[in-house]
Amino acid sequence: MAEAWLNEPLAPAARRLLIGAVEAFAARGYHATATRDIAARAGLSAAGVYVHFASKEELLYQISLIGHRGTVQVVRAAAARSDQPAVRLRAVICAITAWHARYHTTARVINYEMAALTERHRADIATLRREIDALVRQTLEDGVAGGVFDVPDVRGTTLALLSLTIDVARWFRATGTRAPEELGALYGDLALRMAGHRG
Amino acid sequence: MAEAWLNEPLAPAARRLLIGAVEAFAARGYHATATRDIAARAGLSAAGVYVHFASKEELLYQISLIGHRGTVQVVRAAAARSDQPAVRLRAVICAITAWHARYHTTARVINYEMAALTERHRADIATLRREIDALVRQTLEDGVAGGVFDVPDVRGTTLALLSLTIDVARWFRATGTRAPEELGALYGDLALRMAGHRG
Repeated sequence: MAEAWLNEPLAPAARRLLIGAVEAFAARGYHATATRDIAARAGLSAAGVYVHFASKEELLYQISLIGHRGTVQVVRAAAARSDQPAVRLRAVICAITAWHARYHTTARVINYEMAALTERHRADIATLRREIDALVRQTLEDGVAGGVFDVPDVRGTTLALLSLTIDVARWFRATGTRAPEELGALYGDLALRMAGHRG
Repeated sequence: MAEAWLNEPLAPAARRLLIGAVEAFAARGYHATATRDIAARAGLSAAGVYVHFASKEELLYQISLIGHRGTVQVVRAAAARSDQPAVRLRAVICAITAWHARYHTTARVINYEMAALTERHRADIATLRREIDALVRQTLEDGVAGGVFDVPDVRGTTLALLSLTIDVARWFRATGTRAPEELGALYGDLALRMAGHRG
């Protein structure tokens, strides 16, 4: 279900507004979307939007917050499965990749419209992104320390690994030949190669 | 020079319009950009735009065409340096990465606004993209045939390699710590790992 990214308790109208906003932002971009277009998608008047959200930016912020919290959750769950760096890296990259494939429309909005957030809201989202970044970096460092990974540039490799999973949102289509989990498995294997895993 | 992607002969006003259009599309998105905003950036009237380009979409198409032609050129030049698959793969990924870093604003527009092109224009751009894809895929296949690469999924690995280079446009900033060529070198090394290179 494409709306399963919206895994937080919400009033039905607020939920419809967030779903409508994601669709509108993804189709035409944040700046080209009028609040009344989002309202129409949710079956509300433009004034009805402001009962639930203070502004169009607040809608983008809530979408970004829920989307990033969801990613952090799947990353934490994947990381908790094993203390072994190779198993953990593979599971984490697989999980982030599958999330970006499954919720590619939401993922496009939250990754490509960050510049439209207020400075304060962007800082909140950056905190969540840093948690994911730190977990991948730590996993690489643990693997290097344990002698199972060979990573000359941990910072650059962390960036490359996360960049690879984020770009899935750009090209993935549900009508394609790979299921989100299949793509996750491929990217998990590629991540081990990028980490110089001695299997 | 940020405008060096525009390496084709053009009337000065047409050049200013293309540069203004890239800046406006990157800042607010294609759909939120009015033709008069582009005209203003180029120091022309809105009517002046139509002397050079039939429509806003024609501006996006010319930007996409010149940008993709430029990428194809650097890819061909990098590929021509060697017949050895490992040398060729490293050079090609390094060149595409550096191009997307150096011209990250243009690269964002041409990669993220493809849906705004007419079907016919999108097909032209897809032809150029297929050439790059085919060259990377062939290089992987040559390396597998020659016993220097180990790639269980050539199609998926080609996709991942190009995806990695394209996402550079999203996050790269000229103010960051890595120069385009340094990032290219890192990504070239990671590409060899992803290809299972037996060095």
